Amino acid sequence: MRNKFDMQLERLNEQLTYMGELCEIAINKATKALQNGDMEQAKAVREADDEIDQMEKDIERLCLKLLLQQQPVARDLRQISAALKMITDMERIGDQASDIAEIIISARMTEAMDISRIGQMSEAAAKMVRDSVTAYVKKDLELSREVMASDDIVDEMFEENKRELVSFIAENKGGYGERAIDLIMVAKYLERIADHATNIAEWVEFSITGVHKGMETMKLKEN
Amino acid sequence: MRNKFDMQLERLNEQLTYMGELCEIAINKATKALQNGDMEQAKAVREADDEIDQMEKDIERLCLKLLLQQQPVARDLRQISAALKMITDMERIGDQASDIAEIIISARMTEAMDISRIGQMSEAAAKMVRDSVTAYVKKDLELSREVMASDDIVDEMFEENKRELVSFIAENKGGYGERAIDLIMVAKYLERIADHATNIAEWVEFSITGVHKGMETMKLKEN
Repeated sequence: MRNKFDMQLERLNEQLTYMGELCEIAINKATKALQNGDMEQAKAVREADDEIDQMEKDIERLCLKLLLQQQPVARDLRQISAALKMITDMERIGDQASDIAEIIISARMTEAMDISRIGQMSEAAAKMVRDSVTAYVKKDLELSREVMASDDIVDEMFEENKRELVSFIAENKGGYGERAIDLIMVAKYLERIADHATNIAEWVEFSITGVHKGMETMKLKEN
Repeated sequence: MRNKFDMQLERLNEQLTYMGELCEIAINKATKALQNGDMEQAKAVREADDEIDQMEKDIERLCLKLLLQQQPVARDLRQISAALKMITDMERIGDQASDIAEIIISARMTEAMDISRIGQMSEAAAKMVRDSVTAYVKKDLELSREVMASDDIVDEMFEENKRELVSFIAENKGGYGERAIDLIMVAKYLERIADHATNIAEWVEFSITGVHKGMETMKLKEN
């Protein structure tokens, strides 16, 4: 029979998975809203962000309870500390999906747009979020490292988007330029979402191995 | 002699003022880092963001304690609820200053840049943050409405920046285009900071009058 602590850890995993799913849905909805010029869907993203904020508070409360009541050590302690850090990144992902929705609403992008490149970035970023949380729950070090490696790919996609945009504006002598810049903002937010998924993956690595990328850097500085 | 509750409210005001100052400093530092190509200062903004995150948690705890222990009503209740909402916006302001710093660091903007227009936006946004918090502490309805009015000015500054950038890229046939886009991202974050200052001002109005802009909208929808 499992003890109470194990059951609470299981509950923590479920909540983190659910929060991760909410983030993924928010990213997908924001991208679809852009694709279809759908204002209602864009507004729904902002509401999803409120639920993500609430999840952050609930999970934080659960983690603090676990830390205080169970006084965990070693790997259990790392697992809970990692969760506490991960939810901050997930909350930011929700904010950034909401920022994308804000651009769609304030720029009144009511017509459907061809955003194949941004669609690719969005899919890649959403996958990174999903994989980083799965890696945590399944203690899958390999998967967490795949997420970290994907960050470079998304960064490159963003740079490519930026170069294309610059050529587009130059070739069109400024025509549609402002709309193009709204799109590159969306790409920027997706690139930031990928950064946060990478942070999550780094905390997963810490929870499994006890070593965090940031710590190594600190160590290097001390030497 | 003042009672304990008044002293705790006074403490809340002090903490909010301090958190507002941290936000203002973060905005100013990020702008200076951009102006001088100063990586160390850009890194300091990210550290300031950690302190802002911590302040949010401290103030939240104080507000919850006040709500539970003192069971305030009417204006006192509104004042504390408004504080709880305001800190969420201030925390986002810290994030956005940190995002500006991130652009400076990742784009390796080591040389000094002429950013007079962005400098103006930054000053306007920082003033809005300062004024919104002052309006709360001094219960100054007039000042909170000035902040709301300033939002349109900052929005217009951003649109102007965007138009200029599009012309710049078109005229230079794409030369320096990527750097120009990094700058417009910074402008976008400043525009979002002004949005959050406006949110704060709206909560100040609520704490004084009991009416919040969002509520009016809801009321309109119900009719």
